Amino acid sequence: MAATTRLIVDIHTHGYLPRYASMLRSRAVVPKIVSTKVRDGAVEERLHILNDEPSGGRPVGRQYWDRDEKLKFMDKHGIDVSIVSTANPWLDFLSATQAEDLANELNDDLEQFCSTGPSLANHQNVKRLYGFGLLPLVPEITTQSLLQSVEQISKLPHLKGLIMGTKGVGNGLDDEALDPVWAAIEKAGLVIFLHPHYGVDSNAWGGKDNGHVLQLALGFPFETTTAVTRMILSGVFDRYPRLRLLLAHSGGTLPQLSSRLASCIDHDPAVASRLNHDARYYLGKLYFDAVAYGPEELGFVSDVIGRAERYEGNKNRESSSPKSNIIKQAAAQLRSSGSKRMFFGTDHPFFPPLSSTEEKWQSVVDNLEAIDAAEGWSEEDKAGVRGGNALALLNIL
Amino acid sequence: MAATTRLIVDIHTHGYLPRYASMLRSRAVVPKIVSTKVRDGAVEERLHILNDEPSGGRPVGRQYWDRDEKLKFMDKHGIDVSIVSTANPWLDFLSATQAEDLANELNDDLEQFCSTGPSLANHQNVKRLYGFGLLPLVPEITTQSLLQSVEQISKLPHLKGLIMGTKGVGNGLDDEALDPVWAAIEKAGLVIFLHPHYGVDSNAWGGKDNGHVLQLALGFPFETTTAVTRMILSGVFDRYPRLRLLLAHSGGTLPQLSSRLASCIDHDPAVASRLNHDARYYLGKLYFDAVAYGPEELGFVSDVIGRAERYEGNKNRESSSPKSNIIKQAAAQLRSSGSKRMFFGTDHPFFPPLSSTEEKWQSVVDNLEAIDAAEGWSEEDKAGVRGGNALALLNIL
Repeated sequence: MAATTRLIVDIHTHGYLPRYASMLRSRAVVPKIVSTKVRDGAVEERLHILNDEPSGGRPVGRQYWDRDEKLKFMDKHGIDVSIVSTANPWLDFLSATQAEDLANELNDDLEQFCSTGPSLANHQNVKRLYGFGLLPLVPEITTQSLLQSVEQISKLPHLKGLIMGTKGVGNGLDDEALDPVWAAIEKAGLVIFLHPHYGVDSNAWGGKDNGHVLQLALGFPFETTTAVTRMILSGVFDRYPRLRLLLAHSGGTLPQLSSRLASCIDHDPAVASRLNHDARYYLGKLYFDAVAYGPEELGFVSDVIGRAERYEGNKNRESSSPKSNIIKQAAAQLRSSGSKRMFFGTDHPFFPPLSSTEEKWQSVVDNLEAIDAAEGWSEEDKAGVRGGNALALLNIL
Repeated sequence: MAATTRLIVDIHTHGYLPRYASMLRSRAVVPKIVSTKVRDGAVEERLHILNDEPSGGRPVGRQYWDRDEKLKFMDKHGIDVSIVSTANPWLDFLSATQAEDLANELNDDLEQFCSTGPSLANHQNVKRLYGFGLLPLVPEITTQSLLQSVEQISKLPHLKGLIMGTKGVGNGLDDEALDPVWAAIEKAGLVIFLHPHYGVDSNAWGGKDNGHVLQLALGFPFETTTAVTRMILSGVFDRYPRLRLLLAHSGGTLPQLSSRLASCIDHDPAVASRLNHDARYYLGKLYFDAVAYGPEELGFVSDVIGRAERYEGNKNRESSSPKSNIIKQAAAQLRSSGSKRMFFGTDHPFFPPLSSTEEKWQSVVDNLEAIDAAEGWSEEDKAGVRGGNALALLNIL
């Protein structure tokens, strides 16, 4: 089925389904949707997703909850299939009871959103929309409730995984309380899409008004990096080696820091002795979206994925190692094999064009052009990143 | 003088000169050096450089303050020339008067440390030790005092620049109060070595005991990235385009985040309108040490430096741009030109070997091997990163 390798799949695309949007409208504190009167008496809704949202929040509208808008956006950019996930901050701010009920309802909503939507013109067995569901990951939730949500998602045929933030049940993702959840997700073969929301302590951004640039450009990737590093250090990937974790924004900054991380671990025997492998090995077990906006970034991410096998095991690096020979492995081969774990994404409906006359969204064009220009990727590699890899990972087709 | 291109220069190597070590011994709070009795009644000194130092602090000894130890380390690893800088946290924790006095004394001490040391065997006009001085960058300091230190350093022939942290005079490096200081440093042609110490708020690291791994592996690079990004956003590099800023640890995570940063700026017109260039352009004006522990990391950093010219100006990216053509510029050419702004470093005396029998330090071997294995760098490029680039940047020879 060669034509399917030409399909474009958006693995990083968000929405607030109508039930979620209604809940946001009912809230008095962030996150919330507020209505404001604009000129001529018209009413505009604005989303306050982060604290101290600049400019009175960002305009929010049908592109967040309307399936037709999602499909229109997909058509405009030539996207065949989208894997839709609830946008941050998910259910993180709710009580255990609220989160439990809403997760259950929203997972059913998302299944319906996908299953009653259109199929691909040339592949009637392939829908244009699939989804990543939600777990009620909040403090006070019971493990039983989390496992029920995993089971629910695994039984909904159009949900291929689940999206989560970095808080876990309040103590982060290196919390052993989550072990039964990882075990269940691994067993069900669901993909976890790890996505940031909180950034880092905002004191880091200083006193200047830079809008949300620092929080989004730096804080988000820092948060993702910290969360997955804590998972590595706590041995999650040693205990659950078949866990399939997809990292938002090309893994934040984990690719650039993984050798430094390995060096710092080497110099702390108490930490090093806990792990089965050099830190860099785990990057070859992870999945990375291709939302990095540049071809050099994509090539580099594929390098660090591709080189991971070099770092299998956790040998005593103080003895002479064959590393310098292994390093000379063909770079092109690393890039090509690394690209198999990378996936096109848009981050829609965020990062919209500033002018309404724009035909295509610059953020989407940037990410597609970056794939096209990535050095060392064959045409087949590029087609994989655009869509083929996602279809294989999610077992679609 | 072809032989000089074979010289190995360590641009990132620290010390606490005896005067500084004495001051640390006199302190009751971090940073401090404490003496503890070990077995057989011997006394061991330990450095507490960060809060909650694990294992009662790290052993500290002559390698921190003794010139012979620095030279012995250099000889062991084939390092010809070292550019020595005071280790963090510099003078950040002192009163204005203390910082002013100590900066003055330590700059003279460092000049003497270098000038009275040995010369290269084959180049009697080249010393084996040069230095980066200190400014009394603390709250309450006067601009006049900072300018006097810049002048002092610029008159000391073996000091080639200065090292600083990210606090400025208390409000970070995007503080306009520093403009006269940038102007004076730019005019004097001194290199600024920007180095982290504070990381990010430690709540990010969670409740598990991971030693200092997260703080060092992630927090340090996050801090550097945040500081230089804030400088970019506040227009420091537009106002002082000839400022020479060397970033520790290969720029932290700025290389991997610069395209995301550019995209976030694009979507915030208030910020975008303040800057003369796309964010990625500024990376071509910066300098990066090669302390990244992996060849793929080094290749990538050279990519983002080399591509910077592509992003000159700040054109309206919503109009169709010639970007996809420009992107296809020969990747090898980008890597080669980018490598000219990169410099070998060791981070000595930090990251020492765990066993005293080790001949060479693994952290140093890793960084030298990474240069050797960097894909797309010619032998000349590698020689430049090992030493030639530093000699040129610092006007040595």
